[in-house]
Amino acid sequence: MCRWIAYRGETTALEDYVTEPAHSLIAQSIHAMESTASVNGDGFGLGWYGKHPEPGLYREIRPAWSDENLRYLCRHLQSHLFFAHVRAATGTAITRANCHPFACGKWLFMHNGFLGNWNRWRRHVEALIPDELYPSRIGTTDSEAIFLAILGAGIQHPIAAAAKILARLTDIVRQSETEDRFRFTAALTDGHDLYAFRYSVNDHANTLYYREADGGIVIVSEPFDHDENWTTVPEDHAVVAKAGERARVTPLFQREWQAAE
Amino acid sequence: MCRWIAYRGETTALEDYVTEPAHSLIAQSIHAMESTASVNGDGFGLGWYGKHPEPGLYREIRPAWSDENLRYLCRHLQSHLFFAHVRAATGTAITRANCHPFACGKWLFMHNGFLGNWNRWRRHVEALIPDELYPSRIGTTDSEAIFLAILGAGIQHPIAAAAKILARLTDIVRQSETEDRFRFTAALTDGHDLYAFRYSVNDHANTLYYREADGGIVIVSEPFDHDENWTTVPEDHAVVAKAGERARVTPLFQREWQAAE
Amino acid sequence: MCRWIAYRGETTALEDYVTEPAHSLIAQSIHAMESTASVNGDGFGLGWYGKHPEPGLYREIRPAWSDENLRYLCRHLQSHLFFAHVRAATGTAITRANCHPFACGKWLFMHNGFLGNWNRWRRHVEALIPDELYPSRIGTTDSEAIFLAILGAGIQHPIAAAAKILARLTDIVRQSETEDRFRFTAALTDGHDLYAFRYSVNDHANTLYYREADGGIVIVSEPFDHDENWTTVPEDHAVVAKAGERARVTPLFQREWQAAE
Amino acid sequence: MCRWIAYRGETTALEDYVTEPAHSLIAQSIHAMESTASVNGDGFGLGWYGKHPEPGLYREIRPAWSDENLRYLCRHLQSHLFFAHVRAATGTAITRANCHPFACGKWLFMHNGFLGNWNRWRRHVEALIPDELYPSRIGTTDSEAIFLAILGAGIQHPIAAAAKILARLTDIVRQSETEDRFRFTAALTDGHDLYAFRYSVNDHANTLYYREADGGIVIVSEPFDHDENWTTVPEDHAVVAKAGERARVTPLFQREWQAAE
Repeated sequence: MCRWIAYRGETTALEDYVTEPAHSLIAQSIHAMESTASVNGDGFGLGWYGKHPEPGLYREIRPAWSDENLRYLCRHLQSHLFFAHVRAATGTAITRANCHPFACGKWLFMHNGFLGNWNRWRRHVEALIPDELYPSRIGTTDSEAIFLAILGAGIQHPIAAAAKILARLTDIVRQSETEDRFRFTAALTDGHDLYAFRYSVNDHANTLYYREADGGIVIVSEPFDHDENWTTVPEDHAVVAKAGERARVTPLFQREWQAAE
Repeated sequence: MCRWIAYRGETTALEDYVTEPAHSLIAQSIHAMESTASVNGDGFGLGWYGKHPEPGLYREIRPAWSDENLRYLCRHLQSHLFFAHVRAATGTAITRANCHPFACGKWLFMHNGFLGNWNRWRRHVEALIPDELYPSRIGTTDSEAIFLAILGAGIQHPIAAAAKILARLTDIVRQSETEDRFRFTAALTDGHDLYAFRYSVNDHANTLYYREADGGIVIVSEPFDHDENWTTVPEDHAVVAKAGERARVTPLFQREWQAAE
Repeated sequence: MCRWIAYRGETTALEDYVTEPAHSLIAQSIHAMESTASVNGDGFGLGWYGKHPEPGLYREIRPAWSDENLRYLCRHLQSHLFFAHVRAATGTAITRANCHPFACGKWLFMHNGFLGNWNRWRRHVEALIPDELYPSRIGTTDSEAIFLAILGAGIQHPIAAAAKILARLTDIVRQSETEDRFRFTAALTDGHDLYAFRYSVNDHANTLYYREADGGIVIVSEPFDHDENWTTVPEDHAVVAKAGERARVTPLFQREWQAAE
Repeated sequence: MCRWIAYRGETTALEDYVTEPAHSLIAQSIHAMESTASVNGDGFGLGWYGKHPEPGLYREIRPAWSDENLRYLCRHLQSHLFFAHVRAATGTAITRANCHPFACGKWLFMHNGFLGNWNRWRRHVEALIPDELYPSRIGTTDSEAIFLAILGAGIQHPIAAAAKILARLTDIVRQSETEDRFRFTAALTDGHDLYAFRYSVNDHANTLYYREADGGIVIVSEPFDHDENWTTVPEDHAVVAKAGERARVTPLFQREWQAAE
């Protein structure tokens, strides 16, 4: 159970969103409000886009609250599209490779949630990753495996690709006699368009909010201030925030995708 | 504000005290009860005595709760006298050299507390360290400086040496116009005898408890179970637990020491 | 390309073999002689047996030469059977989970070598790991995958199990058009008996030596002193050092195993 | 004994100088040519100037050659003035606070060299740091202490301030009966002007080179390519590279400064 923030808008220093707000992501690393794990001290990560077509990554296994490098980077890095994440591990190792966000080519992904009984289902989920993407499997988390599976499921249509993999994962946990839980609140981007997802099986979904202003959007697992303009994303829905358009909220499983399944 | 445990008694695996109790030190690292800092995630350390006259040390900057090495070591290390500590930093860097316990020759020391406005008083306190011990100043904490000052103040009489340095530190913070606070709850040993201290200036002292059984003693900043036999150490007192004797609680500033000052 | 040492004999402090010899493993971490990688600075690890039936592990991603914890542990840990390893990574992430030795139940394993073009063959090799051992796959190295595959191939007969998996791996790299190389110089133990292997395909095998004295044995990738009693293990051979017996060197692929294949 | 590079010129990605050249600083971290320590694996650091008046810092204790964050940052960070450094420690702890460069306000400093017998002279050198700068002493190296001493010695005239402190340090080591050595090859900047120093006492000075092109300058401890335009800086000299001017090489101890001493 983690906390994260995704930003797209005017180019800005990351600190305006990551370290400076009263209830910033860094503050959430040591005391989150809307999370079953109030401490998110098992590493963190930044992913951001600049001049290079592929995103930059800074991931560390130390708690975000004590990382002086993070403060310098949030002050000096400027970006129009970035992800930040603080991790509360749910069983897999504390390594940089297991910290979010995950990058693959131009894509960036981060996740709050878990696939219950991961050790039992891991091979089934890894089998969803196509051979050509398997070399990008550098960590061992459920999150990274799901990301690579989505990338391999027709990523030119991100919502459809995610819905396809979520349907497969739903089948996997539903077949479990132990009613294993699955929570998936995630963000995905190609450096231009931004997508977020709120979904769960056998459980309540983790929270997801967004706020638009000045042509930009911030999507978060938990608001970082008391502004009243945060919109709650309903369960089983996705946020589609295409560059140059207003965000829209859409059901994850629309009729045509279910038909396609 | 940290949490710690000191043990002397039958040789035992460290896990019996450090990782296995319901409210173990590891559990306290992610959620302490009697501390202003409920998260003690800024590193940790073990110090223990074995065949070698000088203690072993294992110190790490990661949170104790996620360190797999710590679990292996607590299972495999056996000792008759050991210290364990989880750290909540109060301003100094997160480095191994700033994690407790601190070792110097045969001596081992750990501390819960702080000397307020440390950056202002640091030079005054470091000046209390004799030249011959200054090479042992490998970190930058108030705790290590106080330890080395005590070692240099006639350590053949540990309570008197500590009282002497605490009196100097009291003078330092009392002369501050800002009424800087000083909290000192600490443990000290030479590998045979065990001492603990509870003291403060301009503030309440941090908690300190001990429990004797089977000729051994455990001294803690916070009980790790609901046993009723924990004894609270009063403020401005020390615990003296000499090898082969029952522990006794003594005022830190007895008449003769004050006279000696 | 790594360096390692395996010891079984009288209970001793690890420092006698790991840190103190003139050309100790720690010295080899910063300057190895018989290795294509002269710097082995990508992490290290200790594995040792004590009272507990399962081994202890201490693994770190820092270079061995600068780790103060390692020096303390080598002085204070006593064992009759231990492994020590310094790593030069060949492509996989620098994480503790990727440092040797690897433990699974009572078994301990470490490896010097690589399976060339790992990203291409990884799925084939991971497929050799039985489902019930796949939860023990916590890292991403070729070494750990081969270890778990051997454990799953009839480990009650360790040489036969290793030979079986090495034959499969030989088939995999031989089918490659690029003549991918495979080097495997490894040690394996269950806490009683000790086994070591020297093998390669499409390449020269890495060096392997052993020395017996006083009923004990030391097996190394590179001698740590100029003693003349080091015996070179030939390519395609294994060392079998059963508890209470003299070591013997045996061909890896004996007639009956090849037949069984 | 470390390796470093200082750049001022057109705004560029750091990778053009730090990671991409054939004999880049990263390559020097695992195999330097003109250094008594061929491995510089005891941490590294970047310092750079952007929109903010104070520099950014990224310092890590892992070897530079295996740090994936470093590669991402060197690709994405753009700067007109930056320092990069790989460390070979000479006795002080491997902590981020002991990695170069060091920052204080708008100033940035890095060093290749050492003050011999540091533990003996440390207090003398720390005494050169004015009280108001002592809170910036967050590590324990000779390098950081000398930097803060220079800052406190009239930094509005950087060459004079450095010469003043170097004269004091020369007195310190010259008074030693053991003829302790002192090597000082360093770079200093306020975000606009760039200074470098090559000096030693009782020893040869470490190498120092620079190259000018297109109105910019690169100063290095060791050339990172075979270009013939590298200029060697003589011993006991400084490079003064003021913004908008050509660099000039000047004796460290000019008559007026010696007189002022």
